[in-house]
Amino acid sequence: MQSRLLEIHQDVLSKNDQLAKGLRKRFSEAGIFVVNLLASPGAGKTALLESTITSLTQAGIKTAVLVGDLATENDAKRLARTGVPVKQIETGSICHLEAEMIARYLEGWDLDQIDILFIENVGNLVCPSSYDLGEDSRVVLLSVTEGEDKPQKYPPIFSRADLVLITKMDLAEAAEFDVTAALSSIKSVSPKANILKTSAKNGAGMDAWLAFLTKQKANKAA
Amino acid sequence: MQSRLLEIHQDVLSKNDQLAKGLRKRFSEAGIFVVNLLASPGAGKTALLESTITSLTQAGIKTAVLVGDLATENDAKRLARTGVPVKQIETGSICHLEAEMIARYLEGWDLDQIDILFIENVGNLVCPSSYDLGEDSRVVLLSVTEGEDKPQKYPPIFSRADLVLITKMDLAEAAEFDVTAALSSIKSVSPKANILKTSAKNGAGMDAWLAFLTKQKANKAA
Repeated sequence: MQSRLLEIHQDVLSKNDQLAKGLRKRFSEAGIFVVNLLASPGAGKTALLESTITSLTQAGIKTAVLVGDLATENDAKRLARTGVPVKQIETGSICHLEAEMIARYLEGWDLDQIDILFIENVGNLVCPSSYDLGEDSRVVLLSVTEGEDKPQKYPPIFSRADLVLITKMDLAEAAEFDVTAALSSIKSVSPKANILKTSAKNGAGMDAWLAFLTKQKANKAA
Repeated sequence: MQSRLLEIHQDVLSKNDQLAKGLRKRFSEAGIFVVNLLASPGAGKTALLESTITSLTQAGIKTAVLVGDLATENDAKRLARTGVPVKQIETGSICHLEAEMIARYLEGWDLDQIDILFIENVGNLVCPSSYDLGEDSRVVLLSVTEGEDKPQKYPPIFSRADLVLITKMDLAEAAEFDVTAALSSIKSVSPKANILKTSAKNGAGMDAWLAFLTKQKANKAA
């Protein structure tokens, strides 16, 4: 039973990979830089995006967001206040976004009007890991309140990260967060990942994160 | 493809339900009260258990723990310091525990020597929801740092909770946690669930949680 399930899961993944390849081509042709944001529930993905989008808009960079959750439009409503195009993908019981959902929800958007597309995945450190969404960059968030050893406990998702953003640094002291232990845990599963310490609340590290985005975007355009 | 996947998933679930039924019978015959602990990664399951087990041991109640993670024996090592029997279940890429794993890891334990068995599930607010492990009580943790709207965003897991434990209350002020909003979010998906506000760090609410456990345990024995 379990092996048949795995086999069919492989079929689903390879179909997803094909669709993601098509998406990547479309994004590339439209000159869009695409970020797939992954994290536990409540790691601060939406708060990070609210702050990020506000800064990018001020800098004249056009963004859009697709945001996934099992239920509610809460995050889309929060993000829509930034004024950029936002769509909520409600997945029902599915614990990740898939390339097919991205393709479907992109409909109606003029891709030429987007510089950076953020995909806020369903809050989950396991399921979204194997699903390519056609992104250029995978960014995994680790909040200081989650504990330093999460990368070692969830190696698949952290090992595929291009960038690990440590979030909620404003709570680091209250949560007795051990930065050295966290960095060592990240590096043990993802030796090449970039790592930034951030707080959307007090702005720490946000300049470095914005610089990462604009540099990656420029590199793609070049 | 997706429908064939769902169909096979249903087969897996019904096989799991059968095994869970058998486990529930074994637990009942041995007079064990079983708690399935579910939460996001880093919501404080292990810290809660460390404190809980220490108090229960002092009260002469014999406990044991099965703890699930994709990788590492970190949690089992932490919990083993309490001196009670503990086994780590490493699930690899599987985002939940299954009844078959519980049955397998129980081997070698004298069930008559256990009053309360804690099963610390894999940190995930989606996958573990549909897998019955033969437990008597489902306890879902929501940490104050995760945001008040998580119950509405992850309805399946919260709607099946017998008890929702709000954890890390010591961080409530720093995280600007809105208790009223959280209670309303929990009640909207799980009107009958008991709710307790706790902090394993400063001990808040721990007496009520221990009373819940001992009362449930006594009810089962009666």
